[in-house]
Amino acid sequence: MAGVSTPSLAAAVSEAGALGSIALGASNAHQARTAIQELRTLTEKPFSVNLFTHRAAQANPEREARWLEHLRPYFEALGASPPPRLREIFTSFLADPVMLDILVREAPPVASIHFGLLEPSWIAALHGVGCVLMATATSLPEALAIEAAGIDVVVAQGYEAGGHRGIFDPNVKPAIGTLALTRLLASRLRIPVVAAGGIMDGQGIASVLRLGAAGAQLGTAFILCPESSATDHHRQLLRQPGGRRTAVTTAISGRPARGVVNRYFCDIGASGHPPIPDYPLAYDAARCLHAAAAARGLQEYSVNLAGQGFALSREMPAKHLVETLVAEMTRS
Amino acid sequence: MAGVSTPSLAAAVSEAGALGSIALGASNAHQARTAIQELRTLTEKPFSVNLFTHRAAQANPEREARWLEHLRPYFEALGASPPPRLREIFTSFLADPVMLDILVREAPPVASIHFGLLEPSWIAALHGVGCVLMATATSLPEALAIEAAGIDVVVAQGYEAGGHRGIFDPNVKPAIGTLALTRLLASRLRIPVVAAGGIMDGQGIASVLRLGAAGAQLGTAFILCPESSATDHHRQLLRQPGGRRTAVTTAISGRPARGVVNRYFCDIGASGHPPIPDYPLAYDAARCLHAAAAARGLQEYSVNLAGQGFALSREMPAKHLVETLVAEMTRS
Repeated sequence: MAGVSTPSLAAAVSEAGALGSIALGASNAHQARTAIQELRTLTEKPFSVNLFTHRAAQANPEREARWLEHLRPYFEALGASPPPRLREIFTSFLADPVMLDILVREAPPVASIHFGLLEPSWIAALHGVGCVLMATATSLPEALAIEAAGIDVVVAQGYEAGGHRGIFDPNVKPAIGTLALTRLLASRLRIPVVAAGGIMDGQGIASVLRLGAAGAQLGTAFILCPESSATDHHRQLLRQPGGRRTAVTTAISGRPARGVVNRYFCDIGASGHPPIPDYPLAYDAARCLHAAAAARGLQEYSVNLAGQGFALSREMPAKHLVETLVAEMTRS
Repeated sequence: MAGVSTPSLAAAVSEAGALGSIALGASNAHQARTAIQELRTLTEKPFSVNLFTHRAAQANPEREARWLEHLRPYFEALGASPPPRLREIFTSFLADPVMLDILVREAPPVASIHFGLLEPSWIAALHGVGCVLMATATSLPEALAIEAAGIDVVVAQGYEAGGHRGIFDPNVKPAIGTLALTRLLASRLRIPVVAAGGIMDGQGIASVLRLGAAGAQLGTAFILCPESSATDHHRQLLRQPGGRRTAVTTAISGRPARGVVNRYFCDIGASGHPPIPDYPLAYDAARCLHAAAAARGLQEYSVNLAGQGFALSREMPAKHLVETLVAEMTRS
């Protein structure tokens, strides 16, 4: 939910009795502290923060240069040029001890990690301040590694899920659906499983509980809430999906992510493209390209992450949405 | 379930109170009649038959020749040669009016179609003998076309599903998970939705009912039943999945199918392969290659179709499995 979540969205969700979350994966430690403190002014209820635990970007100047050349025609069609080089636009939590210090000091009730595990000493530090830890798995081997690391809860992220797939090694591409993954993990793990991916309403939540999940994680369902920071264009795609569909591409960021199909999926990421720079270096290129298009009023390179259930999006304040979800869950 | 289903498996399922099905997609009309009549000697309960409604194979001798050249090293490594040409090893129901005559005469209680729609007059003929019609959809547009055609029930085949994906146009590749697809179709259609894909136990069945499905269709869950005609090798893969996984490939048959990963997925279907012959022409090549390997006692080109839930397979007689599923569904 990086780029879409806000403290006010998380607070509204938590106030309504669910567990609101703020995405800190693309934030630096200072921004993270500000967001947590703002959230705490809005609610005294439990909340969660989400961090990215990818391997630090492996620079490869030749690969990055080839990728920028691949993008050059797209930039030039907009009267722009590709940037001279690609930057690591945010730091992995793994490489950010200042972020750990902030989290230990702020002690969020729950912290979730995405893209891999943490050092045992970092897990211990967060546990030491009472923080419940959650980690994303897209396959049974990842889930077993999470359990073995002493993480408290596993998030079973099915193939339906919008946004970045939480796979540990982006070269391995499990694509297991939410139903199959949730049932497998709930059968094989001792720690609680929270299901994610394609869940848009209370019927979806009830269905994953029936699979043995202890809870459900919804992202796309909250994009249309007025409290989210989604762009107007992103909202419009969810309001009127028409014939649009989602797909997974690595061409936006360097890691597989699911979003509403546009030119990243069809043109830039079409077969025959050169190797994609490491995550999140490629993301810098995508942001520059979008900025060049947006300067001309175009949205064709906007990044509109969303899950396969996006056509079931509903537009209402987060409090009302949580209440609706609960009513749907309990309705037979 | 073509190649795995048998009249005795279908009969055992129907006798236990579920709806047994026999796969007739790879059968000619004479074989179909024999199978239906054999099934009727085993049960008086309702049953279903499944037909393939793909577009008749489009021959393209150059494409077929290139594909056979692509396969030549695999054949030669086995001391064999590719066949001189590829045959259409079974006929689409769409092009088989004798099959329609047999079905009208035999009047199976339920008939399901896979890969596309039927002519209105054929739908009317089957309805005229009291046959309930089901058709597979992998997306909302396919499901809406099924409903508009007057089919009685839609099967929401999620990406988890084993075997051939029922997509109408094999060049379009929706990959929607069972949870997201079932919920979307149940929300948008007036006709009943039966969910398929990744459902291995009663918890899975209960979960899709909670999504609004009227029923669940299980295939992989029945492969290990003693009544199935699965090969010993196929059974072994399901008994001891180890680190094996499933994936979708077009390289076996010419249409996307999910099975346990082997050389079709990694080598033959790896990127850079020439265009694949139309379904089911490519299937003939796969069968020849498997025959050449099997003659040397090798299983590396065996076709082991299975869904993403295959690690949850259980080995028991079909009657016992159906009873177990029912017990799991009702257990809270």
